[in-house]
This record gives sequence, structure tokens and C-alpha cells, in this order.
Amino acid sequence: MSFNTFGKLFRFTTWGESHGPAIGCVVDGCPPNIPLSENDIMIDMNRRRPGKSKFTSQRKESDQVKILSGVFMGKTTGTPISMIIYNEDAKSRDYETIKNKFRPGHADYTYFLKYGIRDYRGGGRQSARETASRVAAGAVARVVLKNLIGKNFKIVGAVTQLGLLGCNKNSWNEKEIRKNSFFCPDKKSVKLWEKYLIAVRKAGSSCGAIIELRASGVPAGLGAPIYAKLDSDIANALMSINAVKGVNIGAGMSAAFLSGEENSDEIKGISGKAKFKSNNAGGILGGISSGQEIIASFAVKPTSSILNSRDTINKKGKNTKISVKGRHDPCVGIRAVPIGEAMLSCVILDHYLLK
Amino acid sequence: MSFNTFGKLFRFTTWGESHGPAIGCVVDGCPPNIPLSENDIMIDMNRRRPGKSKFTSQRKESDQVKILSGVFMGKTTGTPISMIIYNEDAKSRDYETIKNKFRPGHADYTYFLKYGIRDYRGGGRQSARETASRVAAGAVARVVLKNLIGKNFKIVGAVTQLGLLGCNKNSWNEKEIRKNSFFCPDKKSVKLWEKYLIAVRKAGSSCGAIIELRASGVPAGLGAPIYAKLDSDIANALMSINAVKGVNIGAGMSAAFLSGEENSDEIKGISGKAKFKSNNAGGILGGISSGQEIIASFAVKPTSSILNSRDTINKKGKNTKISVKGRHDPCVGIRAVPIGEAMLSCVILDHYLLK
Amino acid sequence: MSFNTFGKLFRFTTWGESHGPAIGCVVDGCPPNIPLSENDIMIDMNRRRPGKSKFTSQRKESDQVKILSGVFMGKTTGTPISMIIYNEDAKSRDYETIKNKFRPGHADYTYFLKYGIRDYRGGGRQSARETASRVAAGAVARVVLKNLIGKNFKIVGAVTQLGLLGCNKNSWNEKEIRKNSFFCPDKKSVKLWEKYLIAVRKAGSSCGAIIELRASGVPAGLGAPIYAKLDSDIANALMSINAVKGVNIGAGMSAAFLSGEENSDEIKGISGKAKFKSNNAGGILGGISSGQEIIASFAVKPTSSILNSRDTINKKGKNTKISVKGRHDPCVGIRAVPIGEAMLSCVILDHYLLK
Amino acid sequence: MSFNTFGKLFRFTTWGESHGPAIGCVVDGCPPNIPLSENDIMIDMNRRRPGKSKFTSQRKESDQVKILSGVFMGKTTGTPISMIIYNEDAKSRDYETIKNKFRPGHADYTYFLKYGIRDYRGGGRQSARETASRVAAGAVARVVLKNLIGKNFKIVGAVTQLGLLGCNKNSWNEKEIRKNSFFCPDKKSVKLWEKYLIAVRKAGSSCGAIIELRASGVPAGLGAPIYAKLDSDIANALMSINAVKGVNIGAGMSAAFLSGEENSDEIKGISGKAKFKSNNAGGILGGISSGQEIIASFAVKPTSSILNSRDTINKKGKNTKISVKGRHDPCVGIRAVPIGEAMLSCVILDHYLLK
Repeated sequence: MSFNTFGKLFRFTTWGESHGPAIGCVVDGCPPNIPLSENDIMIDMNRRRPGKSKFTSQRKESDQVKILSGVFMGKTTGTPISMIIYNEDAKSRDYETIKNKFRPGHADYTYFLKYGIRDYRGGGRQSARETASRVAAGAVARVVLKNLIGKNFKIVGAVTQLGLLGCNKNSWNEKEIRKNSFFCPDKKSVKLWEKYLIAVRKAGSSCGAIIELRASGVPAGLGAPIYAKLDSDIANALMSINAVKGVNIGAGMSAAFLSGEENSDEIKGISGKAKFKSNNAGGILGGISSGQEIIASFAVKPTSSILNSRDTINKKGKNTKISVKGRHDPCVGIRAVPIGEAMLSCVILDHYLLK
Repeated sequence: MSFNTFGKLFRFTTWGESHGPAIGCVVDGCPPNIPLSENDIMIDMNRRRPGKSKFTSQRKESDQVKILSGVFMGKTTGTPISMIIYNEDAKSRDYETIKNKFRPGHADYTYFLKYGIRDYRGGGRQSARETASRVAAGAVARVVLKNLIGKNFKIVGAVTQLGLLGCNKNSWNEKEIRKNSFFCPDKKSVKLWEKYLIAVRKAGSSCGAIIELRASGVPAGLGAPIYAKLDSDIANALMSINAVKGVNIGAGMSAAFLSGEENSDEIKGISGKAKFKSNNAGGILGGISSGQEIIASFAVKPTSSILNSRDTINKKGKNTKISVKGRHDPCVGIRAVPIGEAMLSCVILDHYLLK
Repeated sequence: MSFNTFGKLFRFTTWGESHGPAIGCVVDGCPPNIPLSENDIMIDMNRRRPGKSKFTSQRKESDQVKILSGVFMGKTTGTPISMIIYNEDAKSRDYETIKNKFRPGHADYTYFLKYGIRDYRGGGRQSARETASRVAAGAVARVVLKNLIGKNFKIVGAVTQLGLLGCNKNSWNEKEIRKNSFFCPDKKSVKLWEKYLIAVRKAGSSCGAIIELRASGVPAGLGAPIYAKLDSDIANALMSINAVKGVNIGAGMSAAFLSGEENSDEIKGISGKAKFKSNNAGGILGGISSGQEIIASFAVKPTSSILNSRDTINKKGKNTKISVKGRHDPCVGIRAVPIGEAMLSCVILDHYLLK
Repeated sequence: MSFNTFGKLFRFTTWGESHGPAIGCVVDGCPPNIPLSENDIMIDMNRRRPGKSKFTSQRKESDQVKILSGVFMGKTTGTPISMIIYNEDAKSRDYETIKNKFRPGHADYTYFLKYGIRDYRGGGRQSARETASRVAAGAVARVVLKNLIGKNFKIVGAVTQLGLLGCNKNSWNEKEIRKNSFFCPDKKSVKLWEKYLIAVRKAGSSCGAIIELRASGVPAGLGAPIYAKLDSDIANALMSINAVKGVNIGAGMSAAFLSGEENSDEIKGISGKAKFKSNNAGGILGGISSGQEIIASFAVKPTSSILNSRDTINKKGKNTKISVKGRHDPCVGIRAVPIGEAMLSCVILDHYLLK
């Protein structure tokens, strides 16, 4: 069976294959009377769009979103918002060579096992192209959250680790994130990352990345123990993004190495309001937001489509070799930044509506 | 709002507070005609039970599970299985001192913000005592999986990192895991861990842990793209366990540091069957099981209840100090092993039924 | 597969068999800080309880509800409310004779086909005993609704047709409903119904009933187009009650016989507020409550357990005869009144929380 | 909140407004490898399509369905099937006069109360135009069921009551249903119905209808007690159709008037197989299919849009009059036949997949 819907009250359903006529999503549960336009959505779409720099896939897509329903005279009506994005640069001929082979690291093999049929063109449904629909849904969530919570609400993501190269998170600079091609928050790392990624690409290889998301202005009290915790829903959301293999909340995996004193964030009352001295919890205690900044990070594995030759088998189980030519991102993790922001926006809005 | 149900087709709902009369769960969607007894469930319950060794909470609970429905003449009937566990050693007087203070690192503050009321006795609903109900549900799932898949199916968990001390995962030994008090898979580390944990406890402190889960014999083809992936459901399940802050699938966060060649597991056809040369994917590609061993790990933060004094506020927002006396585990991560196994069992069975 | 949970945000899960040790339910999603006691719940339980009059089943059950969780110091905490009802008068020996035969009109045959196993004692899970758990959950919903909406909120049900005998709905009298053994709203019909039911029972037969539910004080705007309409959710809720075969909203099936002018309720503005001239809609337009009284009715088929001999087959497919001795209601529809009220209360609260 | 998704494993989400650019649906959970084309879907679409005869709405829509995803080389792939239907004959100017008035019997008033905004053009989302999307989804379900179950599976619906005129159900003739404009199963009634409907239309009025659905070839054992019963899911599905006010399963509301002997269908074993002597149960016992024909019927209220003047209020609560000109069906119940079939197909497939 197949589940292509995400969310509880704010729900979106995505559809479409990499090389079909179009992809899209239906957003259901959006509150009414929120001003919303296609331009609002294009802000996020443009940040994920391929073909923007030499460091991402060279597929040329305008990724223009068309709203087909749910908005009347510039405002949401509370009915489903259907959005469509036409595929403009789907070159199906490129993929004929891999029609019968399973690309290592891709879902070719498991989709075939599960369904007995697969649209092999560009990865079909398993392609990261699906994430464009998520970004469109997330853009709606972001607009709604800004409208309901106010301008204090903000979600910002950045790449904090590009393959073997980290950056100085203390130099986190939001303007810088918007400027460079890597969503890098630390100006000093940009040049180095550029050289590194060029080298990776030239070597016909690829690299992974770690993305950190920060959401500020999130009200306290969001979340739902025991099995729809804010953090477990975030883990679910981020792990559902293509190629993600790990998710941390606050201190994350590192929490294992801390002592009880180091880890648990002490509280100070300042004019009757709680202020935490640290944020190892990542803004979530017992599955409920504390009012602190929500911090989540996730790791994206290196792009599996690489030029270098790899061992694999074909549909008949015979041994063969494969090298995947094409216009792939050397680091799919980079474009995961707006996707992560989108998923986090949707989870937060969902819990905001559940409150 | 509150969500206390987990799962899609195999669903369980837990209920109960740490110091109420009882806790329990209702398992719905269990296939019929599976032999099931209370003894089957006690095998897992006993592994999680407090008071077993000097390294865990000294609360004395027999954790005896009573099945109230859904089993007839020793077999499941397909109707809901209600299980109840009476609280026998709930000492409510111990908690009077913390009635009006928020323990740092605990959910006291956020529960109070969200609900405006909380059963403060022993942490009430937010207590890890709730996990006993999960283990009972997971034990049912494990019995069903063994029955449906056969003896090849196995889920084993172990602590691979105890605070600052790791162990040699190459010496992973299942018999050893069952023998020592730490679910440690490497015999050589046991003595050292023992000394370390005694020191941590004497210091009035606590430490975190990393748990690794391995599921073998899981059929290929389980999972459901795009938003009910096997891995995103596992992330959701493990992150929902109290005190968990990070979840990895296969290489996990480390995948960020690998090259495309290192990461993507090559395939060899051996008499027509796919054999993977490595398992960075943790047995899951595109959200679908590949037939390889499923490997997931998660980090548990150090126990937040510590003897050492910490800054906090009371319900009125006034500054105060707190030190939590009592019978707490110095490392709650240890008892998370059977809980993690239980959650993974439930996710795998759920997807097995969805197939 | 089996689904024993009802509701979206206000959810309850029931469990238990007719002749097991106990039955019960877990109510999840109940708002916090609502005063709630076992006595509150017993008000409704006592109305459904068997053995009260000579016109219902002679099974003697106190149906005492015990709350095991979710209530602290007399108030709900927002965590799951687990309730248990012990089976006190389960006489399993009575049912040995029907162990291998399928009772016509009962679910014996279909349960056996579906599950290949069934707890035949008293109908097991398929027994109307399950409805006691629904009434407990509905009683919680009713308390919450009164608390949130205020005293204007009221749900009253009555039997308006007992087998072949109707009553005068224009004489609808709530006090009368509470007085007689039939939930009959029209005093003049009571004597006649009594004679009729005695005759039916003496004949070893049974009869059906129609129950009408009226909910007043329900705010306008509840409901959710297109597939979680208030009316479709009510239809689902009422049709899920054992032995129900038809559900009407407002004019119901009779709407087919009206003209457009007769049917559509005209609106008058009285000091700016909408007043409807009639209520064929039953208080629901386009799946959303209009603020009018919500009116739903449902038909309960005659009790299938009758003394008179019937043709059936046994587990081996052989022809045989069956006559069901025991303590059955001559009209199960009578006790369906509090069950219908309970289900309607749950649906209305669910949509109130969804608003 | 708004819920526009129907189903558990076979799920569809509809979107779109009467006078927006398009409407459509996304079908999720469709099994893979089923041959499916747009032509397959058009068979059912053409049966619901307006403008076909002088007895239905004169809106001219080709209702051509375009499949955008989920089908590859003529077969379903297990991924979401997105279908789009462009609105071709939306004359928005027609509706300017009713922009600020609430049409009695329509959802204008309740939508406005709930959302504070509504797309008033042609009823917007509340328009029966939405049902075209349901028919597309139902057509997919029907194709899948035929493929999985075989040619024995069949769902046929008919109008059995047109306003005040019934028909002879003993003369039920499927060929006849396909021939006349009323889905009337009894040839002798057609002429009379024609005269009647012409008179109703000339009078500027409208009439209701009762539709009966019969599904044969449905395997025994489908359904899920207690709260996802086959019959309660059918009630939910049919009551969710615009203008439906009552739903019956088998004997339905009439079951109230039967005795236990008359109602409960006796069983005869014929060469080891169960044969029922009657079908008052409508093929469902205890929420589970028995293998008999499944019979459900539902009442559709008379079209609320009528030429004759009615009392109502405007958005400001002022009294006014309204008469709805336009191209409305004199009996919306007629076109409800393929819609009912579609919903029933979806419910049956859903339970078939859940089995």
C-alpha cells in the first residue's frame, strides 16, 4: 500500500512522477481567510528549484506553481488548495539505459520488489522531484503561520556540514544563508565549500550534508504526548525526505555523551517568565514545545547517482555495472534546506491547529 | 489534544499514570489465530522491569500483565487485546516536594503550560512508566511476527554507548547482551561500564546512552512511500520514546561524511538473488525494506532526575532550586533497549500487514 | 483487520467480550480541567443497564464503571481516560449448545468466516454488551459538552416506533421518556406498548424499533465538508450500533416524497438572526450544523435471538435447527436509546473540538 | 477544519470548485499492475455528466478526465493517480444575484457561518459538481475490483422512487436502467416518470428520489467490527453525497416493523455452502459481508434550487426573497445513481484491501 498524505489537521497529499506531465499536491485543512497567492509560494519554490547554479542539477524547470482551487479573491476559503507544477524539462531518453538495472543507493530495487512495476524514467515517483510538491505545501504552511502567529515566527535552515567540511555555527548569519549557493550560514566557509564541491563533481563522485533548522517564535504548548509528540512528528517528517538517514532534536545523538547536569536546561524566572539557560532540548520537552527556539538537524546521504562505475544487477538478477550519467546534484543535501523548512513548517502548523 | 495511539493497521493505545491504580494498553488489529499467553508477554516485560539490578530504578514492580480480552482458548481472535498492569510500588508521598516546581529536563513545565493541570505524582503520564505498556504491545507484535514470518525473524537491541564509554561493535554477541545488566553486546566492556555507572551514581549525576537495534529476517518490500516510509515510521516510533533525542537509520548522521561510492551499497547477484556488499542503508531504500538486516540506532539523553541541585522556577514563576531524590535510573537509556525493540517490532508488523 | 476506535480528535477505543472478565474503553483527546466522576458516567450507564425491568434482558450487571486514569483530583488532565466494567453475570454454560451453530440474524456466521475463530460465549465481541463501553465514552462526551457549551446543550432520545406501534410525536414529553420502561415520549402510548411487548415475548418472538435523537443547543458551524460531514459522521456512528439498519437525518427517507418548496427550510431574519420556518434538514446543511435542533433517527431490527425454532447450518455446513433460549431483550431497540445518545454526543464533541 | 479525503487503504482526495478552472481528485492506495485508461473512467463519467437529457442540468461539460500520474504504459504503478477535469461551462455571471443571499436548503448559510468566506459562484465547493471527482475515483475502484475479484463482481444502481412515483422493483431490469434517462429499472414506469418530471419542472418546482444499489459477487468476510463496519462505512459514504438525508441497508427503516422471525434470514446448507432464504440483512451481518448481494438505498431530497420564490435573509440578516434561475436538475437524485455506485465501489474496494 501507498501513503502519500502527510499531517493530521493540516494535511497535504502529493502526486506525480519525475517525467510525467506534471506533479502537484492538494493541501487540505488550511484555515480560511488567509491572503495567499502563487507568488507567495514561488518564494520557496525558487529556493529549491534546480538549474539555478552550477552546483545543482542542470535540469531546467521554472517550477511555476498554479493554484487550481481553494483560493477565492486572493484569500483561502478553507477548502482544498490544489496546486500543479508542470514538468518542462523531462528528458526521458536519458534514462533508457537504466531501465532494466537497479542503481545502487536508489530505490529502484525495492520499488520493483514491492510493486512489480516502476516508472523508471528519472526515478519516477521515487525521484526527489516529488519534493517540489512538499515545498509548495510548506510554503502555504509558512504563510498561514506568519498570518496566525505574527512576524515573530520564522523558520530558517542552513547546511552546516558539506561532506567532510563543517562550518562555524557561531557565525550563523541569515543574510549569508540567502546569498551563497550552499545555504551556508558562515561566510568564511563558502569559498572552501565551493572548491570542495567542484572537486567532488570533477571526480565523478558526490558528498553528503547536514542541515540544521531553527524555528523561532513558536508558541509554547504545541505537541501531543505520547505518540504524536512534536519531536516524533518532526523526526517522521524529516526522515521522510529522500536520502535522509538521521535526525537530531537539539543536542541529538550528542546527548548520549552529556551528563545530567550538562544536558538538562536550567530555568530562570525573569519577571515571572521562564528563561532557559541553554537549549539542549531543542525547544521540546516531553514532546511539547517550551517556547524556546526549536532546533532540528538531519543528515542527507551523498547523491547515489554518480558517474563512477558500480556493481549491480539487472531485473533478471544478472551481475552488471552501472554509471549514472546526467545532470545530478553533486550534493542533494543542499537543496534539502528548503524541503526541511517546508516539512517543519507543516508539522508546526499542524500542531498549532491541534492545540 | 492528545494522541495515545500508535500504528496504522496494527495499532495500540496506551493509558495510565505513574502513580494511578494501573497502566495498560489496548492492541487493535492483531491477526486472529495466533497462540498468545501472558507468559509470552512477560519475557519482554521482565527485560524492562525496574528494580532488577542496582543499576536501574529501585521501584519494585512485578509488572505482571493481565490479558482482559481478545484471546480465547489460548489464541488471538482478531478482536482488541486489552492488557492491564497494576502499579504496586507507587510512593506518592515522595513527590510532594516537587508538586509545585518544574524539574529541568522533564516535561513538568510544558505539560503544565499545555494542560493547565498535571498529575505530578511520579511524573504522571509523562513518566517513563508508560513505556511498560509499549513493551507489552511490542511483545504481542513480536509473537505475531515470529508466527507469520517464522523463526528467521529476530529483533535484538543493545547499548553500544554508555555515556562517554563506547564498546567494540565488532564483538557484538547476543548471548552476552542477555547476560549483563547493561544490554552490552561486547563482553570486554562490561566491567568498565559497571565501574563507570557506579561512579556516575555516586556523583549524584546521570549519563546518556546510544542503543542499536538489529532486525533480521524482515521480508523485502515492506514500507510505503512517500509519507509512511519504513524509515520515517521507525524514526517516529523511536523518537516518541521518552528522552530520545536522535535517530539514525544505517549509517545515520555519519552518512553525511561518506562519498557516493562509500555510501551506496553495491549489489551482487548470487544465484539470481541480490546480495548487498555493505549495509549503509540500514536495510531500507526509498522507504522500503530491501531484505537486508534493518539497523536503527537512537540516543537517550541522561536521566534528568539527578541529586545535584539545579536552578528552576515554581508554578508562580519564582526562582528556586531543585534536587530530585528518589530511585531513579542513573542511565534511563539502559532500559530503553526492550522499549526500542518493542517499537520496532510494532512498526515492522504494521508494515507487514499493510503489504 | 479490526477497527475498534471511533472519532477524530475525541476518540474512544472499546475492548472486551460478553463473557470475558471485563469490558471497557479508553477515551483519548478529552479536554483537560473538566470535572468528571464515576457517578457522572453511571447516570447514562444506568439507563442502558440490563435487568432493570421485565422488558429487557434479565442478565444482572451493576455495570459499575471504574476510572483507571486520566482524572486527577476530580478533573480530567487531558491524558487518556481508561474505564473498566467487570462482567458479573456471564453464564457461559448457557451458550454451549450454540457453540457450533450459526444463529440467523446474528454475526456468528460472518465472524467465523472472517476470523476462523470466535469467542462464542454470549456472542463474544459481537454481543451488544460492547455498547456499555460506548455509553461510558458518550457519558464523558456529554459531561464535556455541557461544560464547554453550557446548560443549553442537551441530547434526548426516545423510542418513537415499537414494532408495529407508533406514538404521537407531537406529544413528545421529556419527563415521560424518563418515567416509562420504553423511553416512550408519549404518555398515551405506554400502556399499549406494554401489552404489545408482553405479547411479543410470550409468542417467543421479538420486534424492532425506531429511535429519534434530538440535540439542542448545538452551535452553528460544526461539521466538515466533504467527507467528514456532521451528517455522514452521524450516519456512520448510528449505523455502527448493533442491529441498526437505517439512519435518517431530519426528514430522512421521507425527503424523497417532498417537493422543493416543502422540503427546503425557509429563513426569516429576526433581529438579525436567522430563524428557520421548519426543520426538514434536521439542523444540518451541506454537512454543517445550522444552529437548529439536530434531529436523527435510526431503525433497530428485531432481536435475532428468539425462542422460536429457525433453520440454520452448523460449522460443518450441515443443516440444523436452532432456538435461542436465554434472557434476551424482546426488543433490543429500547436499550439503543442511551447508546444512540452516546454516539451522537461523541460525534458532536468531536466536531466541536475540530471547529 | 476540512476533510476532503475518503477511505482507509484505498483513499481519494477531491478538490475544486464549481466555477474554478478545474476540479479533480488524487487516488492513493490503488494496487499496482491494474490496466487502467482514461476511457475506463469515462464510462462512469458519462453516466453522471450533466446536459445529456432535458431532464438534467443544462450545463454543458464534456467532463473529460485526464490522468496526470500513477499510470505507466497503461498500468497502475501503485503510486497516486491524479485526475483533472476542466470546468468548461462555468457561467459565473449567472450567480451575481445570489452573491449576498442564502438559498434555502443549500449550504450557503452554514458555509458562511463556518468559514466567514465562500466562493459563491455556482455554490463553489458545496456544489454537486464535486461529485464528478467522486465518480472518477469510483471508476478506478470499479476497474480494480473487476480485476481482482473477476467478472462476477457488479454494482448496479437505479432510481426506485421518483418523487411521489414508485416503480415495481420486481421488474428490475438492468438493460432498462441503461436505456432510459431516469435510471429506472422498470420499463412500465418510464413514461409516467417522464410526464411527472416535465410537470414538476414546468411548475418551477423539484422532487426527491430514492436510489437503490445492488452489489453482487462481493466476497464474504469484508468489513471490520466495531467502528469500521462495512455497513457503517457505507452509511457514511452515501450520507456524504450532496442532498442525501437517509440511508438503508437491506430492509433498512422497515426492519423496525418486522418480527424476529420475518427479519432474520434463515440459512440452508446446500452442498456444504450457506444459502440464505431471504436478504433482509442486505448482505451484511455484524458489519461483515455474508457473501449475499449487498443492498443499500438512500434518499435524495428535492433540488433546493427552484424557480419559485422563497423567504430568506441576506448576509446582513435582512429579510429578502430569492428564486433561483438557471439550469438546475429538477431532480438531483437521478444523477446520484452513478455517484452512489462510485461511493459503494470505493467502500467495497477499501474493505477488500483491508481484509
